[in-house]
Amino acid sequence: MRQYHHPKEDEITLTRVLAALSDPVRLSIVSALARKGECGWSGFDTCVSNSTLSHHMKVLREAGVICNRGDGTRCFVSLRPELERAFPGLLRSILAFASKDERAHLCDSAAAHKSVI
Amino acid sequence: MRQYHHPKEDEITLTRVLAALSDPVRLSIVSALARKGECGWSGFDTCVSNSTLSHHMKVLREAGVICNRGDGTRCFVSLRPELERAFPGLLRSILAFASKDERAHLCDSAAAHKSVI
Repeated sequence: MRQYHHPKEDEITLTRVLAALSDPVRLSIVSALARKGECGWSGFDTCVSNSTLSHHMKVLREAGVICNRGDGTRCFVSLRPELERAFPGLLRSILAFASKDERAHLCDSAAAHKSVI
Repeated sequence: MRQYHHPKEDEITLTRVLAALSDPVRLSIVSALARKGECGWSGFDTCVSNSTLSHHMKVLREAGVICNRGDGTRCFVSLRPELERAFPGLLRSILAFASKDERAHLCDSAAAHKSVI
């Protein structure tokens, strides 16, 4: 099972979180997770290649925005509760302005809750 | 008098604003402007060189966060009211979490309201 590095709570900084959210695809991933809760990684039907999606997931994970949970060969993604503890209400404030275009980077029906990487 | 390009209100996007704010020096500049209102450009006593400060100001201006106003040979910087119209409350939400370290990039006494470039 692949191991992913997740920064500690005190390593989550405002500027890194803002940088991680400053991309339409990453913003759409976070919007979907905020609406749906935990999702299978490969269930995100974005307009980008798998390698690009993998890069975006890494940026979000290394900023402390999302975490990966392995279950056998499966990998699930969710928002980190530490983010809300560190910056209460910040994500909600930002996502309130995520445009429909940014949300449209994801296909709702394809963001399945369980899928195999 | 040097002319600066300012994006139109409908060109101000959430992701560009977040990218512009994802740097400690830029966040400290915006924090100071939110507290003090319009300031002379050269009055910001940051820990960076003038050329680096100029770069940060350009990033903020091109994202639609700040605007420059010329007055003879002087140049003044302020937050753009269009930003608050486009994303009401967003800047306040973000600045609430700007750490003391980020604010400390500026020396209050040096952020004079009028200074010469």
